[in-house]
Amino acid sequence: MSDADADAEVTVEFGEDGLVPAIAQDAEDGEVLMLAYVSPEALERTRETGEAHYYSRSRDELWHKGGSSGHTQSVEEIRVDCDADTLLYLVDQSVGACHTGHRSCFHRTIDGENVGERVFDPDEVY
Amino acid sequence: MSDADADAEVTVEFGEDGLVPAIAQDAEDGEVLMLAYVSPEALERTRETGEAHYYSRSRDELWHKGGSSGHTQSVEEIRVDCDADTLLYLVDQSVGACHTGHRSCFHRTIDGENVGERVFDPDEVY
Repeated sequence: MSDADADAEVTVEFGEDGLVPAIAQDAEDGEVLMLAYVSPEALERTRETGEAHYYSRSRDELWHKGGSSGHTQSVEEIRVDCDADTLLYLVDQSVGACHTGHRSCFHRTIDGENVGERVFDPDEVY
Repeated sequence: MSDADADAEVTVEFGEDGLVPAIAQDAEDGEVLMLAYVSPEALERTRETGEAHYYSRSRDELWHKGGSSGHTQSVEEIRVDCDADTLLYLVDQSVGACHTGHRSCFHRTIDGENVGERVFDPDEVY
């Protein structure tokens, strides 16, 4: 295998709905911050701007994370899994990722125990 | 809010296909290992056995991770995101998560650079 082959850009396998899930992970401390969905346009915008873009399934539109709250994600690296149908964004998260005011959206155990850090008051941001 | 309310079990919002994505993360070093999908039965089996179960969309069946390879995931904690439609399994991964022999399925950047650790030879396992 030539070096060119080894480093060939990965073709992302978008699903039937035109999206792939993307995990945002803190590039520094490894905390998993959120999962959202990415369209080809969102991926393109992320690579162009260096800030995380997703596709909002509820609003049915391109979503610049932090566009209104200011809690943007600077993307340091994009990884792709073995099947090329999931992305991993390694990010520098401004303030917090979760609309509830927590740093991570995964701030609860399945038993309902709060294990996450609250970093802002959502009433003051949204 | 009473303590009982605060710790009420979270109701997972399975999608129209009856599944939710689940991220498996190394409980020790924080490495994101894989993403797969979970059915209500897979979640129940995971909680009962303490070993990660998923639902294989390609084989259309319950999937005990590592059932054939021996590369099981001991689940230390299950977290749920703010919308309760994504799970995070914090796991102790035996050997490697990826069928390619890498520890993590996210062993490539989107530019095709290999950044992951190869921990076994898939030809000897599968």
